[in-house]
This record gives sequence, structure tokens and C-alpha cells, in this order.
Amino acid sequence: MEKLKKYVSVEDEDHFYHQGAVELLIFNFLLILTILTIWLFKNHRFRFLHETGGAMLYGLVMGLIIRYVTKSPDVESGTVYECEKLKSGPTTLLINITNQVYEYQYKREISQHNVNGHQGNTMLQKMTFDPSIFFNILLPPIIFHAGYSLKKRHFFRNLGSILTYAFLGTAISCIVIGLIMYGFVKAMVHIGQLKQWEFHFTDCLFFGSLMSATDPVTVLAIFHELNVDTDLYTLLFGESVLNDAVAIVLTHSISIYSPKENPNAFDAAAFFQSVGNFLGIFAGSFAMGSSYAVVTALISFMHLTKFTKLCEFPMLETGLFFLLSWSAFLSAEAAGLTGIVAVLFCGVTQAHYTYNNLSADSKMRTKQLFEFMNFLAENVIFCYMGLALFTFQNHIFNPLFIFGALVAVFVARASNIYPLSFLLNLGRKQKIPRTFQHMMMFSGLRGAVAFALAIRDTDSQPKQMMFTTALLMVFFTVWVFGGGTTPMLTWLQIRSVVVGVDPDEDLKTRAASQSAPNMDKNTTKAESAWLFRIWYGFDHKYLKPLLTHTGPPLTSTLPEWCNPVARLLTSPRAYGDQLKDGDTVYIINNDELTENYESSAHIAVPAQDSTASTQATGKEDIQEGDLGLGGYKLQLQHSAGQPQKNSLA
Amino acid sequence: MEKLKKYVSVEDEDHFYHQGAVELLIFNFLLILTILTIWLFKNHRFRFLHETGGAMLYGLVMGLIIRYVTKSPDVESGTVYECEKLKSGPTTLLINITNQVYEYQYKREISQHNVNGHQGNTMLQKMTFDPSIFFNILLPPIIFHAGYSLKKRHFFRNLGSILTYAFLGTAISCIVIGLIMYGFVKAMVHIGQLKQWEFHFTDCLFFGSLMSATDPVTVLAIFHELNVDTDLYTLLFGESVLNDAVAIVLTHSISIYSPKENPNAFDAAAFFQSVGNFLGIFAGSFAMGSSYAVVTALISFMHLTKFTKLCEFPMLETGLFFLLSWSAFLSAEAAGLTGIVAVLFCGVTQAHYTYNNLSADSKMRTKQLFEFMNFLAENVIFCYMGLALFTFQNHIFNPLFIFGALVAVFVARASNIYPLSFLLNLGRKQKIPRTFQHMMMFSGLRGAVAFALAIRDTDSQPKQMMFTTALLMVFFTVWVFGGGTTPMLTWLQIRSVVVGVDPDEDLKTRAASQSAPNMDKNTTKAESAWLFRIWYGFDHKYLKPLLTHTGPPLTSTLPEWCNPVARLLTSPRAYGDQLKDGDTVYIINNDELTENYESSAHIAVPAQDSTASTQATGKEDIQEGDLGLGGYKLQLQHSAGQPQKNSLA
Repeated sequence: MEKLKKYVSVEDEDHFYHQGAVELLIFNFLLILTILTIWLFKNHRFRFLHETGGAMLYGLVMGLIIRYVTKSPDVESGTVYECEKLKSGPTTLLINITNQVYEYQYKREISQHNVNGHQGNTMLQKMTFDPSIFFNILLPPIIFHAGYSLKKRHFFRNLGSILTYAFLGTAISCIVIGLIMYGFVKAMVHIGQLKQWEFHFTDCLFFGSLMSATDPVTVLAIFHELNVDTDLYTLLFGESVLNDAVAIVLTHSISIYSPKENPNAFDAAAFFQSVGNFLGIFAGSFAMGSSYAVVTALISFMHLTKFTKLCEFPMLETGLFFLLSWSAFLSAEAAGLTGIVAVLFCGVTQAHYTYNNLSADSKMRTKQLFEFMNFLAENVIFCYMGLALFTFQNHIFNPLFIFGALVAVFVARASNIYPLSFLLNLGRKQKIPRTFQHMMMFSGLRGAVAFALAIRDTDSQPKQMMFTTALLMVFFTVWVFGGGTTPMLTWLQIRSVVVGVDPDEDLKTRAASQSAPNMDKNTTKAESAWLFRIWYGFDHKYLKPLLTHTGPPLTSTLPEWCNPVARLLTSPRAYGDQLKDGDTVYIINNDELTENYESSAHIAVPAQDSTASTQATGKEDIQEGDLGLGGYKLQLQHSAGQPQKNSLA
Repeated sequence: MEKLKKYVSVEDEDHFYHQGAVELLIFNFLLILTILTIWLFKNHRFRFLHETGGAMLYGLVMGLIIRYVTKSPDVESGTVYECEKLKSGPTTLLINITNQVYEYQYKREISQHNVNGHQGNTMLQKMTFDPSIFFNILLPPIIFHAGYSLKKRHFFRNLGSILTYAFLGTAISCIVIGLIMYGFVKAMVHIGQLKQWEFHFTDCLFFGSLMSATDPVTVLAIFHELNVDTDLYTLLFGESVLNDAVAIVLTHSISIYSPKENPNAFDAAAFFQSVGNFLGIFAGSFAMGSSYAVVTALISFMHLTKFTKLCEFPMLETGLFFLLSWSAFLSAEAAGLTGIVAVLFCGVTQAHYTYNNLSADSKMRTKQLFEFMNFLAENVIFCYMGLALFTFQNHIFNPLFIFGALVAVFVARASNIYPLSFLLNLGRKQKIPRTFQHMMMFSGLRGAVAFALAIRDTDSQPKQMMFTTALLMVFFTVWVFGGGTTPMLTWLQIRSVVVGVDPDEDLKTRAASQSAPNMDKNTTKAESAWLFRIWYGFDHKYLKPLLTHTGPPLTSTLPEWCNPVARLLTSPRAYGDQLKDGDTVYIINNDELTENYESSAHIAVPAQDSTASTQATGKEDIQEGDLGLGGYKLQLQHSAGQPQKNSLA
């Protein structure tokens, strides 16, 4: 909210009078309206307009009012002044105007053709956020919350498919959109709407990458409410979360792709450098995010010293959790990596390890805090999108480009979902049915991330055209597809029958307690990639015991000669609490993995969440081979954990 | 954190590289260090350094490092450029530098003599917040939290004394400091350290008003931890909360005091205008804050319609609560009133009415949310204070002025506490003992509000001198008096013996469950102002039933002809839930007030908090006469509420 808080006029001598308040008040008012509307809709079980759609609608109306009702031209603001003495723009500029020195702060570089947009309505200018607000303040809590709420065994079971959709799918989508848009741009040049030099193929790819970030928040909310099949939910949610990270890094890599000679010709060296950039930034951000989470886990787990455990001070614990997670974002940014990606993986890791160490109070506090921040940030962004349609001053509406984008987005989504699903089904024991594929195709909404990526750079005319188009795509997909989710579910007959389920119950509980009508009745028989299995074994044997109170004691998993170290590092609770293994519902009995921790593998491991244990009865052999890579056998050994669990609780 | 998020250099072409991250990371690091230190201290029951003191210390060390380790002079930044074409400074300045237009944003006016301070170290500049950050972002949650946690029957029982200390006491303190400082300034002019025209009497009063805002957060935390006498806690806490509001409005009124002729001569018209301003702004802010809270109460209470109550959606409820409370702040600012005062009274009113309507989940969510925000904001401010000692570029250290301030602050505190306590004791049945007065004298710490008031205006040299002095006073009082609290309590023998009390138990519970050794054993025999009693009757009869589910039904309190309206407005729960009257521990049986709601007045009213009901046995007649104004009889009728309460719960 940087920009809204400035003092607006030099003449305004009253330092106590806070000008930005009016603009913030407008946002507050819109958000309050949105909340009241959601409440109304929830009462009437009206599902055609999600809160984000509502926020956008109110923003739109308010933008219209501000645009056409307020008119207060600020004459000075549009004039360009010459300054011969300066060679480059300094950070702070001190200017002597009629014997009084004023301090000016550098904001940005403006293209000559945009100068006009800065004339005129001050109110419109004031209602325009600094684009960095989105990336630095509003997106991080949304993305962190997505990662933090991803702790679902369904996610890990579908990991292979989710990773395929997220990485391969986003790349396909980016290239397809880029190619189609390049075709449209060529056509526009042909009919004289554009000049050749304005729009390179890399610009088209840039547009492709930013339009590849899907955000089916509306669809997921309805899925949640209607208790739609868990695997479909997990596939969509997992894809959208990881896909954001991929799209952000991809956009960055493309934007720094700089071929040496002709920008239209393919430069292999520059291309491989971009690929290298992508991998480096992604891996670096991943490492940064997860290492902060590991540090948090270690601190919250400190039992080696004589200290009272941190969990006895829930406020400090929550504060530390919040600050360390935020530091993950900031460190990544400071190191030139992508903070959003870091914060996503920080969230996932925090949920996986740290969450288990937190006190019950802190578990709830952190969950509610991030849920609340996510709610506010999301609605602010969607409100702002509505506003931006009328208050943003450099829109370039090009019907052909917009139509092209519409076509491109759908073709790209189709060439992402259908071929990949086909490939995945070759390897998956439990196939992804046609109806699910259609639903995933339908759920390719665009949202906050696409918008934030588009608004980050609106200096040149191609970028402005992209921004306008991206904004319209968000409107279209959120309202049309978001609104059409319920009918679509009915039409595809995916909608599961809900009988007597408390609407406010946790999704996990509900999801697990009902069967998926369209898939194999036995939902535990899911896929599990070989890669995942190796990771799982390592995690269960070494990381979990080291970082949390759960899992088998290190003394039993590490080789014997490590015993002194293992004893030092193992939580005293781990010995007694072997039965309380948090989210580990099944134990891998793979040939290579059983040797070392047989002692613990045969202990019945009841799940902490009642949901899992209700269905966790008996043993199941699960044949899997995600991506067609495996022929391994994964044995899930479930315990009849209910009685033990109760005795522990 | 406005300033930290700017792009720092024009040459920095990578839009994705987020420069401000480093500075925010420094703050995060300091806060994490602070949290870990608090944790350490809590483990060792070390009470000589409070978290705020620790944060300040770490800030100081970091400031020292930044000041003397980093050196990166930015040559351009110190130069003043001439611009003949401009008549006044526009909001946005577009400058053409070597054929590239740059946008600059207006920041502030700079006095000629401060220009030098803007040269040199960029890192120091980057570590300097925009002063408006404190008032618009960091202070509101702190003040709201204070108001929101003020819901204590002890507060209302001591209301008269608290108001006296807050209003009369702050005024006395302001005038005394102003006079003493004026004396010191005269002396400084005499010995040639200052020029006569630089420092008016109004400047001294300005300093007096900003130094009158006490902030005994350190002391109160120790009181809380050691379970010190509740009445002493309430007097101190209540005084410090209201005193902030008074000091802020007072500072504002003095700053806009503008006598027509000689600024040193007394101008009656201007003086009365200032007094009028004070009263107007205070009353206006009060009205603004409480009306937003009333709106929140009404919305959260909506039971008239067929809607599901809002409390079934805790997230929406919390969001609405947060946004409406924030709107109170913003509306007050937008209307030219004082947002901080509005948000304080909004907090008090929210606690008094809305809190009762919230679902159990939202009660906890809002409490924890504001507690968390308060914790973060407080530590950020104290961290920043430490930093500012070395990073702020325009310090003016004047030993005589600092010594004068030290003397003035103590004389002012003494002439506030002792005479007022004497006067109050004339009227109070339950006297404020000498030891308490000494402790209150001792607890006159300065903190966040004084700092925020001082940093808001540092343009002129007198203001810079005031800022430096205020900063040092905060350091001195927080470290010396904060650290000396525990020995002082022991020395004054106020410290109550704590036997087997859980350190994390709620203060209220503990406070009520033990007796105050130095006062009348029967702590319920406290004062109650006549004004309070009238208000209480009105509140209990009309407002509580109208705005919450508690209290007697309106049908029994309103005159008979109002019955149709009353029936419409009364919550259906009010009839059945008459016994569940939230925080009403006693019922006024005053002659004038009994008539209308006798039906409810004789119903036993058990307290919801177990604490109150444990001591609430039997009837007590309490003679009161706060301020010597009353001769009324207040009968507190306590119920033996325990069994009923249990059956309800």
C-alpha cells in the first residue's frame, strides 16, 4: 500500500492529516462489502459467484465511479522537466524550488509514449498500487498458505502426476500460447495493427509463461464445499500450486533471455543459458525455502538443552514461525532468487516437519493466521483487478490480440491436460478418468499470479497490451468458468452425493470418509512414484526423527556405529511415541528399505487424523509405476489403529 | 516499510531483483534474535531486561555496525538541483535525463541545513523508515490491542481515578515539562548555545506533550508475570492507555496553536482555539471509533433476519471485525481527526459489546490476531529505536537539553502522581497507598508513542534536538526503570507472594484469585464514580441488550409503550440467557436505577469468568465518592453463581 500513503500535496501543511486514508478506506469498504456478500451467498447456498468474483465485481464498479465521477486534473504532474546536469537518475533528488528544497524519491523509468498517461486525474493515480506490492506483500501469504495447507497424503500419492502437470504441462502451455500468439502477432503486423519490431517471439513466450499460471481458487472452493472427489481436488490443487512457481521462474528466465544478435533468431547459447537460469533459480529457491523451514523445525524441536521447550510460549513460537518463513522469502529475493518459490517450499516443509513440533495452540494460531492473511490478500488482489480495469491509465485494448489470447489459452490448456493425462494413465494403476480430464481442462482459470506477473512490467506498449489482455482473461475465466463449475460438475456427473456432512468440517476428514464414485472404490490404492518412494524412506528414517518427534528413533534407523550421535539427536519422546507417527499412514515395506528399521516398520502406526485410520484397516499391496518408470512393489501396511490411537489421545 | 521497498538505483535493470529485501531481512533477523533472547530469559526467569529492551539493544548494535562498517557514498544524492520553471513541488515529477524520462515521487520538504544529512551513506538512508509508518501502520495495532484487552471490571471500578490521571495528569505533566524546558532553553540562550528565535515556549510545550505519553509496557509485563496487585496494575495500565490518546491529541493541538502576533506572547484567542481543537478532536475521534464498533456489534448480532448468524463463519467474522476496526482508524484520519484515538476507543467498545456476540472461535481468533500484531509492531518499533540512534542522520545531541529533559520528566511525573493521588484519596473509600504512588511514579517510562510523536516532525533544528532527547529518554527509562522494576517492587514490598500459579494462566484469573496485601483485603470494595454509575445503568439497560446477547431483555427495560419495538430488537437468546450476562459481575441497585429492570436485577448473575464468581459471594455495600463528587450508595449484589454457571456451561 506504499503508494497510497504518501503525502499528496506540498501545499498540505498539516502533517497530521493523513491523505492516503481515503484510498485505503475505499479498499476497506470494498472488502467489507465483499464479506457481507459472501455471507449472503453462503446463506443461500448460491455458488455462481465466488468471493473473488464478487470482490472483482465491486472493484469494477468502484473503478467506474472513480474514473467518471472524480475529476481533478493535476497540471504540474504531466509536464516533463529537462535536467542537463544529471547523467543518470539518482535515488533521491533534491530540488530547489523558489528557495525551498524538496526531496523526491526515484520511482521508475517511463517510456516517452506513457508520459500522457501520467497527466490528469490524481485520484486515479492514487488508486494505483506500486506493482511490487503484489509480489512483495500480497502474493507471499497466498502462496505460503497454499504450501502450508498442502499437507495431504493424497498429494504425496499423486506427486508424480502433479509434478508432470506442473513442470511439463506449464512448459507445453507456455510454448503453445507463445506460438499461437506469435501467429496472431504476425497477422496483426500483416494488417498493419502492429509494427514488426515491437513484438518479438520472446515477448510472445513471455506472455505464454505468464498466462500459464493457473489459479482455480474459485473451482477449488466449490469442490471443497461440495465434497468433490479427493483425487481430483488434489490433482488440481497440487498442479495449480506448483504451476505458479514454475510459471514465475519461467517468466523470469524468459525475460532475461538475451540472444546476442537478432532477437528473432534462435540462439542456442542464450536458450541453454535460460534453461540453466530456470533450473538454477528453481533449485536455489527450493533450497532456500526448505532450509529456513528446517531451521524452524530444529528450533521448535530443541530438546537437547535444558531449556523449556519453545512450544510452552505459543506467542513466541508463532512469531518465530512467521518471521522465519518471511525470512525465507526475503533471503531468496536478496540472493536474486525467486521469493515466491522459496516461500512455497518453505510452506510445504513447515507443514511436513515443523507443524508436528508445534504446540496445539501454535498449530491453530499459525493455521488461522495464514488462513486470515491469505483471505485478505486474495480479496485485495481481486478487488484491485476490478479497479485496475478503469483506473490503470495505459490500457491498450486490441480485440485481435485478446481473441488470440482466448484461443491460445484454451488450446494450450487442452494440449497440456489431455496428452499428459494419456501418458500418465499409461503408468498409473488408477487411471485419471475422462470426466476428470474434462474438469481439469475446464478449471484452467487465471488469477492473482498471472495478474501480478503482467502488472510487474507495463513500460512498453507490447507489455501494456499483454497486461490488458491478461486482466480480461482473468475476468472472463473467473466469472464464466468459476460460475459454471457447479453446472459442469453436474453435467460430468462428478459431483459426489453429500449426506449429512457438516459443511464446516475439515476437508481432509470429509474427503477421506467418502469414496470416489468414479474411481476405484479403494482410494488408498493410488500411485506412488519410485522417486517418491526413495524419498519417503529417507524422510521417514532420517529426516522425520531428526526434525520432529515422530518416526522411529534414529538409534534404530542409523547404522550401529552412529549410535552415540543418534542417541544424542533423538527426541526422548521418539522412543515412547513411536506409535504417534503424525501423518505417516502407511509404511513402505520395499525390499531395499525394510532392512534398517524393521523394528519400527512392524509396529502398528495409527494415524493421528481419525479420518485416515477409519479406512486404514488391513494390508494392501499396491502396484505402482508412475510415469511408466517403475515396476517396484509398494506395500502399504495399515494398522487397525483405532483402539491404540484412542488410548494415546 | 514503505521506504525500504523502493528500487534503489536506476542502473539496476533487473526488475526481479528486490533491493529492499536486505533491509527487511535485517529487521527480521533482529526480531528473531529478540524472540530467542526472550525465550532464554523466560527460561531463566531473568526479569531485568524486557523483550522491548532487548529489541532496542539489538537494534543499537545493528545500527552501530551499519553506521561504521558499511560505507557506500552515493554522490548524486546530496546535490541540490535548481528548477526555475516550477512554482511549487508537484506530487509526481517527470524528469528528462539524457533522453530518458524518470518518474520521481514527492517525499518531503527539507530545511536547507538538513541537506548535508542526505549525503553519504545509502545504507543509512535505506534503514530509515518514513515517519508516517509509525503512526499509520505500527501504532494502530498496539493501541487497538491495549483497548481490546482493557475489558476488566477493575478498569471500570477505577475509572474515575484513571480518567483523572490520564487527563489532568497529562495536562499537568505537559505544562510542567514545558515550563522547566523553557527555563533550560533560556539558560542555553544565555550561555550562547541557542539562538533566541529558535525555541519558543510553544516548542517547549510541544516537547512537554510528547514526553507526557507514558508507556510502561516493561513494567506491566513484570506485574503480569509476578501477579502484582490488580488495582495497581489497572491504575497503571488504564492511565498509560488513555494517556497516550490524550498526549497525541494534545501534541496535535499545540502544534496547530498559532498566535497571530508574537509567538512568545500569550494569545487568549489562539489558546482557547487550541483547547477547543483538543476537545473537538478528542470527542470526534471517540465518536468515530465507538460508532464503528457499534456497527460491528450490530452486524455480528444480526438475528432479526432469516440469515445464519455471521458467527457460523469465524473467518468472515474475524475479517469483518478487523476491517471495520481498521476503517475506524482510516475514517478518523480521513476526517482530519486522530486515528489512534479512534482505534483505541474502537477497541474498548469492541471488547465491551462485539466481543460478547462473537463465536468462541472468533473470540480466540481476534484476541490472538491482535496479540500477535501487537507483539510484532511493538518489537519492530523498539528495534527501530535502537537502530535510529546510529542511523538517523540529523541527531542534535545537546547535553544541557538532555539533562533538562531528564529533570523535567521526573519533576513532571512527581507533580502528576502525588498531588492527584492525594486529591483522589480524599474521595476514594479505598485509598491509593503510598507504596503504590511510589511505584506509579517509578513506572513513568517513555516508549513507542513518545518516539512516534517525536519522529513525526524532524525538519527544524529544535525538533531534531527534541527527537534526539526523546530517544535517549526512552533508552534511559526502559533500561534503567524497566530493569529496576523487580528490585523496586521488592523494596516497596508490593510484590505479592506467588504460590503454585501457572505462569501462563490468564492474568485476570490470577489477579482475582489472590488478595492485595497492602490494600483493603476486600478488593471488590473499590471506588465507582457517580458518572460511571449513570453510564453503567444506561449501558446495562439499553445498550447491552440492544447490541449483544447479554443483559436483561429490552422488553423489560424500556417503557411499556415501546414494547413492540423492544420485542423486535431483543435477541431471542436474551430471554433464555439472562443468566449468562458476560462481564457484568455486579448489579447496581441504585435508587434511581432499580425501578425499570427490577425483574432482572434480582436474578442472580453469575460471571462467565470463574475468577469473579469465586470471590463473588454475598452482598457488599460499597460507599463511594470518587473525586469527592458522590454520596451515592452503590450496592453490589453478588450471586453465589458457581452452580448455575456450571449448569449453563
